[in-house]
Amino acid sequence: MTRDAMETRRRLLRAARNEFAEYGLAGARVDRIAAAAQASKPLLYTYFGNKDQLFDAVYNNLIADIVSDVPLDPTDLPGYAGTLFDQSIAHPESVRLTLWDRLERGGQGARQPSVQEANRAKVAAIQRAQDDQRLSDRIPAADLLLLVTTTAAMWAFAQPGPDGTGSEDTDHARATLMKAIRILTGTP
Amino acid sequence: MTRDAMETRRRLLRAARNEFAEYGLAGARVDRIAAAAQASKPLLYTYFGNKDQLFDAVYNNLIADIVSDVPLDPTDLPGYAGTLFDQSIAHPESVRLTLWDRLERGGQGARQPSVQEANRAKVAAIQRAQDDQRLSDRIPAADLLLLVTTTAAMWAFAQPGPDGTGSEDTDHARATLMKAIRILTGTP
Repeated sequence: MTRDAMETRRRLLRAARNEFAEYGLAGARVDRIAAAAQASKPLLYTYFGNKDQLFDAVYNNLIADIVSDVPLDPTDLPGYAGTLFDQSIAHPESVRLTLWDRLERGGQGARQPSVQEANRAKVAAIQRAQDDQRLSDRIPAADLLLLVTTTAAMWAFAQPGPDGTGSEDTDHARATLMKAIRILTGTP
Repeated sequence: MTRDAMETRRRLLRAARNEFAEYGLAGARVDRIAAAAQASKPLLYTYFGNKDQLFDAVYNNLIADIVSDVPLDPTDLPGYAGTLFDQSIAHPESVRLTLWDRLERGGQGARQPSVQEANRAKVAAIQRAQDDQRLSDRIPAADLLLLVTTTAAMWAFAQPGPDGTGSEDTDHARATLMKAIRILTGTP
């Protein structure tokens, strides 16, 4: 791919992420995505196939971003939860996409090999920390990861928006979340 | 209302709950709801107003059902979580409706006075148990309720369906959830 083509592809993915996050798969309009990315619809189809495949590509790209933006330290799951929470408040499109994927597509995006591989790597890191007794093993590694990520993401999703009680409550919400994860993981 | 009218209204609510749970607000079709309830579209509009108001009525009705089906014992939040989990596995439409409400309507259903009143009653029950030291107060009552209900519902929602790993894993999932809530609430 040329540099220009890669740049167009990047713009399409970004526009599609926003569109899918806002309207879901059924409600999303491919015309709007192409227009927002200043690209043509045929080019979009050439790069990504159909709308459903575009959703998968967006999902993949989202998970890759989260993996690089929110590194997992298995001995600091409360901190991991806090950072995931902050990211989910700043970028609500992440949680929205995963929920649309599950509601409209039965979790097809989440079942992609690359996404499952990213998940396995995190579970393995938690498992190693439990094996080395750097982390309590009261809850099995895979369950613990799912509990922490689901709680952090949904905790952010449940917070009121800009029309709600505002940033003071976001601080309180983050503190409560981190406390809950500290209790859950036995982290002092 | 006559007995017949009440029965028709009940059928419409049931059909609308299934339709909204499956397709969300935008994707739901009022014709399908009327047909499934063996009622006419004009009657549906007479009883419930527009599609948006019908969604609110369905949401209200759902919360009333949950309040009566899953009574809250603040000294047994692990048991409450387990029952909520079982209900959410048996009736996935509950979690789906709350997620559509939040994704498509900014949580309008959840902000209805009757729903908020049901929530306040549960928070007050938890608060009393904390005041009487029947329950740890490490996490404030309103946060604790939201943590327990969100975790239970999303834990059920994250489980694979009939195409997945099946009922043995559902038992494991329920046990893990209840253990997590026991740790969180300091319940022996």
